[in-house]
Amino acid sequence: MALTIEQVAQHNTQSSCWLIVKRRVYDVTSFLAEHPGGTKVILQFAGKDATTAYESIHPLSFLDEYLSKDKHLGSIDLDDSAPAGADGQVKKTKDMRRVELERKRKPPINRMLSSADIEDVAMRVLPRKARSYYASGGDDGISLRENVRAFSRFFFKPRVLRKVSQCDPSTTILGHKTSIPVYISFAGLAKLAHPNGDLNFTRSAGQTGIIQMVGTNPSFSHAEIAAARLTPQQPLFLQLYKNPDNEIAKRFVQRAEQLGYKAIFLTVDAPVLGNRETDIKAPFEEEDEEREGEPLPPQDEEVEAGGSEGGVASAFSKQDDADKTWEETIPWLRSITKLPIVVKGIQCVEDAVLAAEAGVDGIVLSNHGGRQLDYAPPSIETLHQLRLRHPEVFEKLEVFIDGGVRRGTDVLKALCLGAKAVGMGRPFNYANSAYGEAGVVKLIRIMEREIVTGMRLLGAARVSDLTPEMVMRVDFYSKL
Amino acid sequence: MALTIEQVAQHNTQSSCWLIVKRRVYDVTSFLAEHPGGTKVILQFAGKDATTAYESIHPLSFLDEYLSKDKHLGSIDLDDSAPAGADGQVKKTKDMRRVELERKRKPPINRMLSSADIEDVAMRVLPRKARSYYASGGDDGISLRENVRAFSRFFFKPRVLRKVSQCDPSTTILGHKTSIPVYISFAGLAKLAHPNGDLNFTRSAGQTGIIQMVGTNPSFSHAEIAAARLTPQQPLFLQLYKNPDNEIAKRFVQRAEQLGYKAIFLTVDAPVLGNRETDIKAPFEEEDEEREGEPLPPQDEEVEAGGSEGGVASAFSKQDDADKTWEETIPWLRSITKLPIVVKGIQCVEDAVLAAEAGVDGIVLSNHGGRQLDYAPPSIETLHQLRLRHPEVFEKLEVFIDGGVRRGTDVLKALCLGAKAVGMGRPFNYANSAYGEAGVVKLIRIMEREIVTGMRLLGAARVSDLTPEMVMRVDFYSKL
Amino acid sequence: MALTIEQVAQHNTQSSCWLIVKRRVYDVTSFLAEHPGGTKVILQFAGKDATTAYESIHPLSFLDEYLSKDKHLGSIDLDDSAPAGADGQVKKTKDMRRVELERKRKPPINRMLSSADIEDVAMRVLPRKARSYYASGGDDGISLRENVRAFSRFFFKPRVLRKVSQCDPSTTILGHKTSIPVYISFAGLAKLAHPNGDLNFTRSAGQTGIIQMVGTNPSFSHAEIAAARLTPQQPLFLQLYKNPDNEIAKRFVQRAEQLGYKAIFLTVDAPVLGNRETDIKAPFEEEDEEREGEPLPPQDEEVEAGGSEGGVASAFSKQDDADKTWEETIPWLRSITKLPIVVKGIQCVEDAVLAAEAGVDGIVLSNHGGRQLDYAPPSIETLHQLRLRHPEVFEKLEVFIDGGVRRGTDVLKALCLGAKAVGMGRPFNYANSAYGEAGVVKLIRIMEREIVTGMRLLGAARVSDLTPEMVMRVDFYSKL
Amino acid sequence: MALTIEQVAQHNTQSSCWLIVKRRVYDVTSFLAEHPGGTKVILQFAGKDATTAYESIHPLSFLDEYLSKDKHLGSIDLDDSAPAGADGQVKKTKDMRRVELERKRKPPINRMLSSADIEDVAMRVLPRKARSYYASGGDDGISLRENVRAFSRFFFKPRVLRKVSQCDPSTTILGHKTSIPVYISFAGLAKLAHPNGDLNFTRSAGQTGIIQMVGTNPSFSHAEIAAARLTPQQPLFLQLYKNPDNEIAKRFVQRAEQLGYKAIFLTVDAPVLGNRETDIKAPFEEEDEEREGEPLPPQDEEVEAGGSEGGVASAFSKQDDADKTWEETIPWLRSITKLPIVVKGIQCVEDAVLAAEAGVDGIVLSNHGGRQLDYAPPSIETLHQLRLRHPEVFEKLEVFIDGGVRRGTDVLKALCLGAKAVGMGRPFNYANSAYGEAGVVKLIRIMEREIVTGMRLLGAARVSDLTPEMVMRVDFYSKL
Repeated sequence: MALTIEQVAQHNTQSSCWLIVKRRVYDVTSFLAEHPGGTKVILQFAGKDATTAYESIHPLSFLDEYLSKDKHLGSIDLDDSAPAGADGQVKKTKDMRRVELERKRKPPINRMLSSADIEDVAMRVLPRKARSYYASGGDDGISLRENVRAFSRFFFKPRVLRKVSQCDPSTTILGHKTSIPVYISFAGLAKLAHPNGDLNFTRSAGQTGIIQMVGTNPSFSHAEIAAARLTPQQPLFLQLYKNPDNEIAKRFVQRAEQLGYKAIFLTVDAPVLGNRETDIKAPFEEEDEEREGEPLPPQDEEVEAGGSEGGVASAFSKQDDADKTWEETIPWLRSITKLPIVVKGIQCVEDAVLAAEAGVDGIVLSNHGGRQLDYAPPSIETLHQLRLRHPEVFEKLEVFIDGGVRRGTDVLKALCLGAKAVGMGRPFNYANSAYGEAGVVKLIRIMEREIVTGMRLLGAARVSDLTPEMVMRVDFYSKL
Repeated sequence: MALTIEQVAQHNTQSSCWLIVKRRVYDVTSFLAEHPGGTKVILQFAGKDATTAYESIHPLSFLDEYLSKDKHLGSIDLDDSAPAGADGQVKKTKDMRRVELERKRKPPINRMLSSADIEDVAMRVLPRKARSYYASGGDDGISLRENVRAFSRFFFKPRVLRKVSQCDPSTTILGHKTSIPVYISFAGLAKLAHPNGDLNFTRSAGQTGIIQMVGTNPSFSHAEIAAARLTPQQPLFLQLYKNPDNEIAKRFVQRAEQLGYKAIFLTVDAPVLGNRETDIKAPFEEEDEEREGEPLPPQDEEVEAGGSEGGVASAFSKQDDADKTWEETIPWLRSITKLPIVVKGIQCVEDAVLAAEAGVDGIVLSNHGGRQLDYAPPSIETLHQLRLRHPEVFEKLEVFIDGGVRRGTDVLKALCLGAKAVGMGRPFNYANSAYGEAGVVKLIRIMEREIVTGMRLLGAARVSDLTPEMVMRVDFYSKL
Repeated sequence: MALTIEQVAQHNTQSSCWLIVKRRVYDVTSFLAEHPGGTKVILQFAGKDATTAYESIHPLSFLDEYLSKDKHLGSIDLDDSAPAGADGQVKKTKDMRRVELERKRKPPINRMLSSADIEDVAMRVLPRKARSYYASGGDDGISLRENVRAFSRFFFKPRVLRKVSQCDPSTTILGHKTSIPVYISFAGLAKLAHPNGDLNFTRSAGQTGIIQMVGTNPSFSHAEIAAARLTPQQPLFLQLYKNPDNEIAKRFVQRAEQLGYKAIFLTVDAPVLGNRETDIKAPFEEEDEEREGEPLPPQDEEVEAGGSEGGVASAFSKQDDADKTWEETIPWLRSITKLPIVVKGIQCVEDAVLAAEAGVDGIVLSNHGGRQLDYAPPSIETLHQLRLRHPEVFEKLEVFIDGGVRRGTDVLKALCLGAKAVGMGRPFNYANSAYGEAGVVKLIRIMEREIVTGMRLLGAARVSDLTPEMVMRVDFYSKL
Repeated sequence: MALTIEQVAQHNTQSSCWLIVKRRVYDVTSFLAEHPGGTKVILQFAGKDATTAYESIHPLSFLDEYLSKDKHLGSIDLDDSAPAGADGQVKKTKDMRRVELERKRKPPINRMLSSADIEDVAMRVLPRKARSYYASGGDDGISLRENVRAFSRFFFKPRVLRKVSQCDPSTTILGHKTSIPVYISFAGLAKLAHPNGDLNFTRSAGQTGIIQMVGTNPSFSHAEIAAARLTPQQPLFLQLYKNPDNEIAKRFVQRAEQLGYKAIFLTVDAPVLGNRETDIKAPFEEEDEEREGEPLPPQDEEVEAGGSEGGVASAFSKQDDADKTWEETIPWLRSITKLPIVVKGIQCVEDAVLAAEAGVDGIVLSNHGGRQLDYAPPSIETLHQLRLRHPEVFEKLEVFIDGGVRRGTDVLKALCLGAKAVGMGRPFNYANSAYGEAGVVKLIRIMEREIVTGMRLLGAARVSDLTPEMVMRVDFYSKL
């Protein structure tokens, strides 16, 4: 059925809400309440073309998967639709012009020597909102920054006169071979970084022999990502935000298992979204920039305007079950899948012990990249405490950490303390933002080089040569 | 009796001192010696119109309460009085013009995401002297800043896989229900922030279900504040500076009890006023600004001019009994009131133990917002020491802390360590300064949201789920 | 005998060296080798008028005391002498003009609220060389700055509900009453600060009831200083740099005893002068400033010019016996004087114990204001260690400290830990530089006010109420 | 044989590679694979004049030593060669012009009061690439900076009333007398600092009575350096990078022994080169500077250009045996030489103990100047740990440290803790850069003066008076 832009425009309320995406019209009225990102973010496009906003978040296939066929109302006439919101017509904001200029100026990829170099480029070429989304942390960003700084409190005790001409940085994660002890963590909204979104991670991981962990709401569908693997043997892991409805959650997990995902990382540190102010403020700041510093129109100062707090992250707040428990959730998950189960988001020694008692296959010591509770401890500190107080846990399950890893030496510190591997999230998104797939590969190669150099200088020819005695926590340094 | 401006002008000495307030003339000669703020601050208006200065500090009703009727000399002719000092005629200083401009430019209240955002606005819209009064600390401001920084040395150990979909941040203070574990501390001179002064706190507390503590010298009378409550059940607490004269003190306490105040917070950390240099310097700086950097007139450098040190706080130094003791004061206070007694200003574990032995109902660990003795310890540190060394004290009385609380996480750290609730003073004055009553409500809502989010991310569904094991004091961080 | 300027000019070598001081001619050839400040500093004036340089260091009476009458060659004709070097003819350097301007601009003394305020003024009004001399420390100034910062690691544990309306800060030092537990340390070269030099300290101490310690080479003679006392009872102490020649040293000590000095502070931390680079560099910098940044004339870069390292301090390096010992020097000193003996410059607990064993009457824990060995410990830290490890020492002798004291709270921390009193040196020189005698009195009054306020807020009505339990060394703060 | 520039130009590939050095032509084709600095760095000069690049690294004699006579093809005509690459013809870069200007402006040597003063001059007068080489550290430069900062955590406990008028700072190293407990460490590429390169160290060491350690690849041949000694008795030490080929290594060591070198310092902390990004980036930055900020030409952003990572250090990466072991290498070395063996690059207490067990004559606690593994511990900290945990090691061998030594007090701290002497590398290169041989002598004199002053102020008349009790590790300071 062919529809006109005027027809669509009349369905612009909560009672009847139509959207245009890619010149097709959808009735999303009944879906409003179910939208993981909330009702409001959809309603702002009610009766309009939502293509740009939609594409920056979701795979197109989601509309087919989640919306019944009778809600697919038909297509719209090209000429009418275009003016309503097609990208080509959008007046460029200052930020858009800044990004265009920075993209032209960026240095060649072969000048990238470290993850910091790549992050610097990404910070320049990313649109403000995307940058704010990636970079934001909870509250004042204390945990965000401590994640990085904490590594600087661990110094090495390198050993000399050991044979290191042959040095092998490979290991396994849950039985799957990886060329270096690093996996790609899911950081969300990968299309904000690059049009190919998560697929660039899949391909890069395949090329370099490392493993990608895919989120619950990636930028392409789980099937598309699975299909992007270089070989069917290339392992993928699934990071699970468990739906409060066990049936929905069960279907989701089993579908992933069928698609070939090899492990479930159950997220436990995000029953509610953290308070990410940088992210929330980004649109205000962009708006102010456009006004060129002109004051806002006058207002009644004593009356609160009724705020639309949110930010990109809020538009994406997950349908995560806030009532998961050790007693119920772990056995349930074990009952619906044969995949190894990893609990992601452990933040203290006591819960690591509980995880071992619960018989899970692994844990990720993580504070969610400093995006959830501010003043949650950096995972390298929690790892250190676990090593000191409950070394037996490392015998019972595989321990991973994420958050703040930037250098090969960071990886090596974690491995010395007993981690099996470390996850990196933001750095890969920055690499994708700056140089796409080539950037992700470049970053993996940089990490590999740094890890191998570090192992040799530590006197370790194999990953198993890395021991707790090789690191010490010092009182004397904090990276500034 | 109608008086002329010339008649009043003749009574401009310590022997005969008349003032005009709101076009009425008062003979305050006999009151000079009793004035809590000292003689000098009154004498500068002897024979003149003191309306502006008076109104910025005192409730009008005080003149009726404290000055006998025969000292009310009559009214003054409007035309004569106005030129002598009415506000409309005052030449605007640079600072006044700055404030006017900043008030126009301030962001809408719905952009306020945190107490820091609100403080930023307040710092811009407050007159210099008011800002200096609120922001000042003792000596070099070490305790002032440490109050805030100290919280950053306490990190969380969040627990996962606990049911937190239902989360209740309410608790009780001395038996009175409060929607969140925060009460409004008295910070003084609230009219400098907003014409409605303390009344805005009363109304906001009523709306949001929290409790206000009112000072000994509020900007409206204790009766006016009691009358501003939304319901007669809304609790108010009284912060007491005990007069050296027991009879005066007794009448004051019993009057408050009759007015419906529900607890006495006896101030013990201010037998003399701290050395608040920022406050004292503010008028000099304003004067310099007016002169536009022109040097002061020449002077005989070797001879001290005889300084009038003071500042806003000095004009208000209290008639506080410097000889209070555990042995005499507490039993005396118990003997004159049935209200619960809380000792406010405990700064070490030893005195907390003495308080428990003295049988008081509560203590506030406080260094008076860093305004008294510099290098007094931040109260979160004292709380931590009390938890470690004398946990039994928490069973014997209610422990509160104040000073440096800015975030929901600060509140939660205190509660984990055993505090029943925390007081916030400056932040509420800043909210009042920036947005009046709406600002105070906004800040309470922000705190509530941060507390609830934090509880969920800690794995706590109720305030009683917050335990000492959930926080750790770290060696590795100080907020910069 | 009347001499001409031409005659004098011929005696400009080490073999025959004449100087003009105050229009009188002296033959100092035989004195060259004995000059405590070295030969070079005199030779630069050989055959010339040295009045200005001489007066900025020495009392005029020294020429009479140290140079036999036959070396007083006579006076010089006024007209001839003046052009050769009288002040009026000196072309003003940039620094002189800067100082003149700053002196006109300085704020009135009644704006001075703290020692820091006074130091700020002094830093502006002092000539560069004088400022460099006063402010300089050894090597990199680590001990210099740590002296101040160290106090910030000691926090209070104030006690409440104690009677403090009556508060008495007076105490005794070696049996002599002092109005506050502070004495004036000798910092040297007081005439650089003010023409009245040390005499301003004598008069101010007399006025305020505190005690002055006078150095071995003060700016006025020991007799002149003794004569400047307000009453014969006003105590003075002597800081002794012991001459290597016991006979000279003996005469010096006994003369002071006859003049009425009441104690000997034997300096033990300066067998050689510390490396004060700021001081040495000051003349270079001034020279560069005069050249307005023009490069120095070309030079042969590979050949060292043969440096005249020095600085103001070097011109004054003392004839101090570098071979003093506990075994020989203390008994010897005891044998030649009945005055109490205080060892000044103790820097570790072990030497404090040795001092007690040696039976001296007191010790000053001091690192010489950070001017000698860099990385010598701040005295408040040494005091703290002494309290922890050898509290019995405080029973055997009086313990003083100096270095870094700026606030009343600093004084109170030292007293809590067991010090009998504290010395302040630089701050008094700064006060003298900025406002002369009135400035010194002002600083004493400021200290008194801060000490009394601090005692009251600590819950101490007398100096003896200050106890070790009232301070704690913290890990959490360093003043920035 | 006379060759033309055109003939040489044809041999510009890996298959046939000719170079011109000093107007002589060499066929280095067969040597390409053996070049310690790698093939690429030579190939960029294939068929061209490599004089400038060659001379900045190697002694001329190396071509005679390492290249058989039949590869010396003959000389080239002067007129033809000059235009191809002689220095006089090179267009000056901005950096060259900056250096010329700075060299004219530099202060006279007698203004140099400390090693920091000299370093400041060197930083200004050095070409960018040389500066980057000298100053660079591994990764983020944490160990680089900690090497310096670590000393600031050690404070002194000076002793007083000890005889120090006679003070002797001399000691022995491996039985050889040295005037102060400092030796010259090898820092590489000394010709970048001064045309006389390492020879300036040899002559300065001879003049001042200290000892030079010469590297494996110095800027002049080992024979030339030996010949530059002031007397045949002047000791030299050899720092050995052991060739993987034992025969080559043996010949090298034995040749040095014959030349009169007195000890072998076996390098063990550099089996691979550290990641020195500053060094690698220097040429990029210079290139950017030349382009005056113009953007690089456009490029396909998704394709990596295939990087030529490297830097000056990379051009010099050593043929170091990465499979050395305690079990094999030490006995082998002992078997081929009678010289004392020192293991250089020990970074933990455990390896110091192994060294003692292996019977070597000495160890250097060193992290290679922070140029190898980042987060390797500063050697003063390792020394402190060794003193605390294995004091018996100091009885079995001589312990040296290097890295971060800048002041006499740094040397004294190390000696107090048990070091026999300390090595200084960069500071001597900076002295050579700034003032050549005179600069090196100046620095040694500065160190001597600081050491003697420090010893006297510590109460130590001889090196053996320096004891562990004289230093303490503090928690309270880090140099900023």
